[in-house]
Amino acid sequence: MSKIGIIQFAPKLGKVNENIQTINELIASKRRCDLYVLPELANSGYRFKNRDEAVLYSERTTNSPFLNALVAIAVAKEAYLVSGFCERSGDKLYNSSVLVGPEGLIGVYRKLHLFLDEKDIFETGDLGLPVFDTPLGKIGMQICFDWMFPETWRVLAMKGAQLIAHPANLVLSYCQGVVQSYAIINKFFIATANRTGKERDLKFTGQSVLVSPEGIVLKRGEEEENKLIKHEVDLSQALNKHITPRNHALNDRRSDVYGDLNLN
Amino acid sequence: MSKIGIIQFAPKLGKVNENIQTINELIASKRRCDLYVLPELANSGYRFKNRDEAVLYSERTTNSPFLNALVAIAVAKEAYLVSGFCERSGDKLYNSSVLVGPEGLIGVYRKLHLFLDEKDIFETGDLGLPVFDTPLGKIGMQICFDWMFPETWRVLAMKGAQLIAHPANLVLSYCQGVVQSYAIINKFFIATANRTGKERDLKFTGQSVLVSPEGIVLKRGEEEENKLIKHEVDLSQALNKHITPRNHALNDRRSDVYGDLNLN
Repeated sequence: MSKIGIIQFAPKLGKVNENIQTINELIASKRRCDLYVLPELANSGYRFKNRDEAVLYSERTTNSPFLNALVAIAVAKEAYLVSGFCERSGDKLYNSSVLVGPEGLIGVYRKLHLFLDEKDIFETGDLGLPVFDTPLGKIGMQICFDWMFPETWRVLAMKGAQLIAHPANLVLSYCQGVVQSYAIINKFFIATANRTGKERDLKFTGQSVLVSPEGIVLKRGEEEENKLIKHEVDLSQALNKHITPRNHALNDRRSDVYGDLNLN
Repeated sequence: MSKIGIIQFAPKLGKVNENIQTINELIASKRRCDLYVLPELANSGYRFKNRDEAVLYSERTTNSPFLNALVAIAVAKEAYLVSGFCERSGDKLYNSSVLVGPEGLIGVYRKLHLFLDEKDIFETGDLGLPVFDTPLGKIGMQICFDWMFPETWRVLAMKGAQLIAHPANLVLSYCQGVVQSYAIINKFFIATANRTGKERDLKFTGQSVLVSPEGIVLKRGEEEENKLIKHEVDLSQALNKHITPRNHALNDRRSDVYGDLNLN
């Protein structure tokens, strides 16, 4: 069994140290989890005035105060963390998600589908759809608006992901229903960690969800509370893709008709 | 504006004439619709003892009493109809869906994903995922368990389908939530016409839904009632795939990463 903790909170724009402190406080508020999932851009906040401001609040994956803090948590708690991360690489910015464990930074996913003005700030993701094999099970990542694209979730299922960690900064609440559907059709767990609070003209909607492979919302956050939302799950359930003894969510696919998605 | 009518009823096993009569009565119960959608296997019923019984209750698309009755309705009402149809072709059986208009039989879709014991009875669909251009707009078809496979719905959206007519014989009620999600992510209308009633060991669950491109359930049937569920929609809404002025449900797809589905 794995204890999953969704850290729903309101990152402060450009205040990485305050954000680290909030995360530490929320983690300290409950007994340890095996995996923590944080919102999109949890190091930087979201509503940048322009690209220059985003550059200012971005971090490289080397010598990042934010990543160092996550690794320290991972070591102290013997846990894994997935977090949104405003990433600078060379001259480029990415809306990224990092997977961190006691061993350090394990992997990065860069958001494939940018929303609205993010297109002025970030490059589109160029690291594909990685799935990482951890002692907890296989973990894939998606970020916020990726929820509109069933292809990515399907690819992650076909690559064996048992849980999709999904940092988000949602302003509407369509997504939570759709991830329930993605969980059902792909038979994996989804942890959508959505932020709360206001930033400039935007209000974020919380209501983070942990969803089972049957599409059941195991735990849901409130709209405004900052909280560690915790629940224990058996990630091995996601290895069973049988719907009936004669039906299989992935093997029944008719790729002879609709082709196949790229798993490279 | 198009008036969509979902004919939710309990087909009787092997009683094609009674089924035609029920359909005629339900259609006569309200003013005309532009498009009627009926459940899966509406001519034959569902729970065949074995393949031999299914052969007995199947019909060819030529000289079919059931299709002739649908065409007569289409002519009388100047309407289009989509219905599940137990189809015999040569020595083979298909769990099919037909599109009928005043001009006669327009097209056939054969279920791609067979559920449980259907695998002993029907061949898997071999007509791909056709989309038909009617005076109402472009119509695609799916049948019942196809709901588990996001690829088919995506292909139909990419081929321009504005409404998916979805005859079903559902025994559970996961599907209705998932089609709401498919409507949101593909931005088209979905009419899931589910049957009611019992047949041997199976109880069907009704609760047919007409869903908007925003995922809103415009109309939902009860669990047990046999009824023509009617609602007026503007199918041209489904032509607009913009989510924001800068985001598009189909054009934002990252086929460079996850590949593309086969649209042939």
